[in-house]
Amino acid sequence: MKKIALYEENDFAEQGLKRLLVHDSPYFKILNFNFKAGQELPVHSHQIEGQVSLAVLEGVGEFLGAGGATLPAKAGDVLISDIAEPHGLRAKTDLRLLVTIAPPI
Amino acid sequence: MKKIALYEENDFAEQGLKRLLVHDSPYFKILNFNFKAGQELPVHSHQIEGQVSLAVLEGVGEFLGAGGATLPAKAGDVLISDIAEPHGLRAKTDLRLLVTIAPPI
Repeated sequence: MKKIALYEENDFAEQGLKRLLVHDSPYFKILNFNFKAGQELPVHSHQIEGQVSLAVLEGVGEFLGAGGATLPAKAGDVLISDIAEPHGLRAKTDLRLLVTIAPPI
Repeated sequence: MKKIALYEENDFAEQGLKRLLVHDSPYFKILNFNFKAGQELPVHSHQIEGQVSLAVLEGVGEFLGAGGATLPAKAGDVLISDIAEPHGLRAKTDLRLLVTIAPPI
């Protein structure tokens, strides 16, 4: 059992999104990405089995999908995507995202 | 790809914690539990392989462990536990929790 306090252990950076590895095990990989307003996790995908969840902890932005698709993203919104399906996020305000990948990449 | 807006799709209840199944797949199971102040997910465990993450989206409380152990829990705190290890949560204020179980139970 371990606890990670994301609001204390990760901050924001003007140069690009700040990435924190929260957990990595045979079961899942958990990451925290912090975005300054305007920063982006570009649309990407990997041709492997599995799914990813993107949970917005704080802030406002857009989930990004294939072909320029967007979905509004705000605190409490969770996006579920196959790892093989294009996904990303663009922040409109400072935004904290919790990403869970299973099985871990 | 699907989006779930937890703050709109789940609310709180005086009778007990409100449970929302967010996602269930061969890769992981995601649940949202909303607690009114004072409500509790009692300490429990299952003798199976895998791990669970408990991410506090909003509110203040305590993570619960074996033998009466507690750890402060607040927004942005993530607890990782083996499914086989005792874990739970007690809310001190209204609290929103995102639970991810991999592999799914």
